[in-house]
Amino acid sequence: MRAVDVIARKRDGSELTAEEIRWFVESYVSGNIPDYQVAAWLMAVYLRGMTRRETVDLTLAMAHSGDMLDLSGVVGYAVDKHSSGGVGDKTTFVVLPLVAACGVPVAKMSGRGLGFSGGTLDKLESIAGYRVELTLEEFRSQAEQYGIVLCGQTSNLAPADGLIYALRDATATVSCVPLIASSIMSKKIAAGANGVVLDVKVGMGAFMRTVEEAKALAHLMVDIGRDAGRDMVALISDMNQPLGVAVGNALEMREAIETLRGEGPQDLREHCLTVAAHMVRLARQNQAEDTLVEIIQELTEHLESGAALAKLRDLVSAQGGDTRMVDDPDLLPAARIVETLEVPANGYVAQINALEVGQAAVELGAGREKKGDPIDHTVGVLCHLKVGDQVKKGDLSFTIHANEADRLEAARRRLERAVDYRRRPQAPLPLFYDTLTG
Amino acid sequence: MRAVDVIARKRDGSELTAEEIRWFVESYVSGNIPDYQVAAWLMAVYLRGMTRRETVDLTLAMAHSGDMLDLSGVVGYAVDKHSSGGVGDKTTFVVLPLVAACGVPVAKMSGRGLGFSGGTLDKLESIAGYRVELTLEEFRSQAEQYGIVLCGQTSNLAPADGLIYALRDATATVSCVPLIASSIMSKKIAAGANGVVLDVKVGMGAFMRTVEEAKALAHLMVDIGRDAGRDMVALISDMNQPLGVAVGNALEMREAIETLRGEGPQDLREHCLTVAAHMVRLARQNQAEDTLVEIIQELTEHLESGAALAKLRDLVSAQGGDTRMVDDPDLLPAARIVETLEVPANGYVAQINALEVGQAAVELGAGREKKGDPIDHTVGVLCHLKVGDQVKKGDLSFTIHANEADRLEAARRRLERAVDYRRRPQAPLPLFYDTLTG
Repeated sequence: MRAVDVIARKRDGSELTAEEIRWFVESYVSGNIPDYQVAAWLMAVYLRGMTRRETVDLTLAMAHSGDMLDLSGVVGYAVDKHSSGGVGDKTTFVVLPLVAACGVPVAKMSGRGLGFSGGTLDKLESIAGYRVELTLEEFRSQAEQYGIVLCGQTSNLAPADGLIYALRDATATVSCVPLIASSIMSKKIAAGANGVVLDVKVGMGAFMRTVEEAKALAHLMVDIGRDAGRDMVALISDMNQPLGVAVGNALEMREAIETLRGEGPQDLREHCLTVAAHMVRLARQNQAEDTLVEIIQELTEHLESGAALAKLRDLVSAQGGDTRMVDDPDLLPAARIVETLEVPANGYVAQINALEVGQAAVELGAGREKKGDPIDHTVGVLCHLKVGDQVKKGDLSFTIHANEADRLEAARRRLERAVDYRRRPQAPLPLFYDTLTG
Repeated sequence: MRAVDVIARKRDGSELTAEEIRWFVESYVSGNIPDYQVAAWLMAVYLRGMTRRETVDLTLAMAHSGDMLDLSGVVGYAVDKHSSGGVGDKTTFVVLPLVAACGVPVAKMSGRGLGFSGGTLDKLESIAGYRVELTLEEFRSQAEQYGIVLCGQTSNLAPADGLIYALRDATATVSCVPLIASSIMSKKIAAGANGVVLDVKVGMGAFMRTVEEAKALAHLMVDIGRDAGRDMVALISDMNQPLGVAVGNALEMREAIETLRGEGPQDLREHCLTVAAHMVRLARQNQAEDTLVEIIQELTEHLESGAALAKLRDLVSAQGGDTRMVDDPDLLPAARIVETLEVPANGYVAQINALEVGQAAVELGAGREKKGDPIDHTVGVLCHLKVGDQVKKGDLSFTIHANEADRLEAARRRLERAVDYRRRPQAPLPLFYDTLTG
């Protein structure tokens, strides 16, 4: 087989065989196909598309390019979640302890943030001492002992994805549904999940801008997972406004802890209960006939009883973090300057541009413009508004946590532009648009 | 400017600005854009196309990526020719001396062959001692002193084309009209020609398979040249059967010499007279009102008088070659085994697959499968048939010149398949399909 022939076939719109795709991915990872041939192929895929069958084969080839975890001997049925990324998305820190509190083990690998979309590992590192890098052995034994693990991806998990993603970023081939789907699902499949709940965000603060686009991506990922023998649920959730109140690493961690205490913003609480309930239901599918409503009731009890918070404490403790920060979030690192913004006139909130709020947090130092940039865990934004709220002149709109005056100014200017107020009542936004099961 | 943005704009089908194209080409040549970004861009160009304006800008950017020769101080008006490549195309060795014999200086840089299409430099090197590598200084002074030069491209002539061509070859982006046109024309423009005659081949033994494709490419190249201030003529010529009789390096050189002596195959002679006449007319456009017919008459006299052959002798002598081989072609290197094939039955020649004849020569060792392969100057094929010929069983069809018995067998099998004989009379093929002027 020759790389140039595989490229030519995709260029001409042909459907590649499973063997061609496997050979191409394997040869790239082993260094036998150079970057420039894969780059040309990615552009051909971008412009010619891939069938569902090709996308499944690409995903499996990428998953099998490194270690394939099998947690069945350790935790029986492994359940995982994936969020497509958004602004203020701290659900993992609430959902994992909730699911673990139901006796369902959760062992998850996550990534870092880029641009307006925050990263789970960055947020975790607001907790002093928390080790995000675990060996595969530590990952397995912690899953067995505590029923909860949350760490970074090991370097040999779907290495083809890391290589291809870096190339897509440099060649304008990121926003391509088959490539996005195979990137996400290859890691989930390699990480050994038996069941996966996908949280596909749609709106101004997400990569997918329309419900149709988000559904197409979700459908494809559900199909891929099912073809690979996994149980799948996909939720299409709103990301037109930030989820919860806090945007920024330590601020989001504090909000997650508050939510696990039975407090926290209502939208975040409801969102997390829904995602967690789907995960629990997947794990129990063969043992119980629980309805989602029953599971949500059970999960709510774990919030009220402190059982869910105890699971977060277990997680932090197991991975070397300072558990005092879980019990007293005031100990989390904090910014030096705190300023508030006010609503300029009476009215109703018609729109809160989540992308602008996310960019304001990046400008404060909470995110990175490019891979490898350092981040400031303390800074960020609290957004006290939700679309549909009735507001009065002088009401609190945003709280800015900053360490530098000029960055604060830049964030303030951006936040003042981010909200659209109207005189007439405005409908609130839904949390979810759809649920797909596979 | 960022490479990824230029790639994204072409990916989305936008027309790139002259500045974007210039920046992209310059940055690539200076090493500031990696191969993989250019590879993705080439695939986007392949699938999205380029406007005439973009193609002109790309050509000029590639031409200006290295030395820009200016021969006007040396030869007044520089005239050049380019053939798009075919089987048995030895026209350059006849045309250049013919044009020079009219007092019109010709200074040409050529390339090597790849696959079924032979290379001018390879054929030249059948003459012992001929130096194909000249410095720019030698190129200029020989043009001035002898009015005839024929050598390889200097390494700094349109270096962007060399880099991009190598990448196209590896990324399945060769057969793309704007990229083919810009590759050819960038070298012609950088080499300093004031007037260019393009010989665009069409048919089974050419890169363009239909007259429409060949015309589209020719039109684009004429447009590019005109936009760059050059005088242009394009001939669309037949390459369904080999041009002349000989296919193979020394065999073609011998046939060119015979043609310059006023002998040689009729089709080759006519083809060369036509190309040469267009070149002379371009060079004389401001001084004389000669018609093509008058110029062809003048050129024919130079064949008969030996003036054209004398110019080839000058060329070989100036570049260190053994002129005795020009005067006595029997001194050219020859193969050890010579075998003949016969026509199998009475009838008419309906088709001679030029591609198969070219491949037979490659199998004998006359061409290269991949860049850098060594070639055997002595081997090749003589094709004694033309489409439309009436033939009898036992007539000579091919003569094979070989050095190895197994290669001879492979070539024989291929040649036996290459000709299609029919019982009814067949129309001969034209030499030219069209002439475009700019």
